[in-house]
Amino acid sequence: MSPELARESTLGISGIKALTFDVFGTVVDWRTSMSAEGSRLGEAKGIQADWVAFADAWRGGYTPAMDSVRSGDLPWTNIDGLHRIILDNILDEFGIVSLTEEDRDEFNRAWHRLDPWPDVVSGLGRLKTDFLIATLSNGNVALLTNMAKRAGLVWDCVLSAELSGHYKPDPEVYMKAAQLLGLRTEQVMMVAAHPFDLRAAQAVGMRAAYVSRPLEFGPGTTPEQPDPEEFDVYTTDFLDLAKQLES
Amino acid sequence: MSPELARESTLGISGIKALTFDVFGTVVDWRTSMSAEGSRLGEAKGIQADWVAFADAWRGGYTPAMDSVRSGDLPWTNIDGLHRIILDNILDEFGIVSLTEEDRDEFNRAWHRLDPWPDVVSGLGRLKTDFLIATLSNGNVALLTNMAKRAGLVWDCVLSAELSGHYKPDPEVYMKAAQLLGLRTEQVMMVAAHPFDLRAAQAVGMRAAYVSRPLEFGPGTTPEQPDPEEFDVYTTDFLDLAKQLES
Repeated sequence: MSPELARESTLGISGIKALTFDVFGTVVDWRTSMSAEGSRLGEAKGIQADWVAFADAWRGGYTPAMDSVRSGDLPWTNIDGLHRIILDNILDEFGIVSLTEEDRDEFNRAWHRLDPWPDVVSGLGRLKTDFLIATLSNGNVALLTNMAKRAGLVWDCVLSAELSGHYKPDPEVYMKAAQLLGLRTEQVMMVAAHPFDLRAAQAVGMRAAYVSRPLEFGPGTTPEQPDPEEFDVYTTDFLDLAKQLES
Repeated sequence: MSPELARESTLGISGIKALTFDVFGTVVDWRTSMSAEGSRLGEAKGIQADWVAFADAWRGGYTPAMDSVRSGDLPWTNIDGLHRIILDNILDEFGIVSLTEEDRDEFNRAWHRLDPWPDVVSGLGRLKTDFLIATLSNGNVALLTNMAKRAGLVWDCVLSAELSGHYKPDPEVYMKAAQLLGLRTEQVMMVAAHPFDLRAAQAVGMRAAYVSRPLEFGPGTTPEQPDPEEFDVYTTDFLDLAKQLES
């Protein structure tokens, strides 16, 4: 056995070499961050609005916008571009007309400034010692890079759906990530709070770790809870994930 | 002025937000690392060879191999693939016939384990506080990511020629990097020890920082020394670069 293969066999469970992470909801609490950004903007500009509802509406436009790209109604547009299209629509819906183009660009960049869940920074620090850790998000590279720099997320590599010209859960996204990492899909574990994302990763041969984020959509909501047997690992947060993968 | 624009104006010289780094020769001392890898392999396998000459020959095959991709003689092949093709050729030239396919794959991975020049880790740490720092290498994403993890290179983002399907100095590589970072080319400074790379970056509007690496090709060689006026910054190493960009 070559030294390289011997080294690989000591890493993690069953030959996993890399963990790829969903970001919105799994790594960062977009709802709290975007509501706070809205509130600050509202105070600065004298705009009254329900900024939590505004954040939910903005995020709610995300799947339909990606579907428009997938169907060909829109040419390839990265998430910064989609977020901006959705923003213009919901500003109209909320009757907010006073924001300039510059204000809108700046508000749109709030998606680059999302705060992580409390366990994320320490959890990633632990996971990074045994695994290559990378994003695998529908967010674009610039968004993910700026977010990581601000929040101290120590990714080994920033991977994005943008690099395949497809959005998750299209299989091209997962296959491109494994290819760029120089790994077979079974050497990569997708980490996400969303079963649809994990199922798509599994469909191309990746391993899957579910992370419960019950507050993603706010208190009183009940995100889909998968069967604990459906994925390789079922965890409560990134520290729990680190503990389960170390054992 | 928006808060974002105000923040940008405090960053570095003339609105530069990101530094993109050439890697082979500029960040890492490929010649010393690859010679040492060859020596270790030779001892383990009982192979006598001039491993410094072997490293030079391997590196020497790199530009012709990229030219074969550029001309269409080879389909798109990443650097791992090109390094492997070159390796098979020079093993023949050096009369080394005893390496198995597995040995060759492992030796080829030595390019993922190159050591940085002594100033690099501390220099990047300083530069990272004021700028987004990213690779922009002909090395593939996996190679650059593995190298960074092993050597402690704290890139904010790993960018590669591989993401554009072109090799430097093709303009597509530099334009793709700026686009992925969400920046205009004039907000990005290319850092390299090779004038041809800096000239190509300047041709698409990037800024350029020259770093002198007189030992890249070994003692007694004289790499091309550009006119100090040709590029925006002319530096002796990454600590000097940090100092000049901070002033």
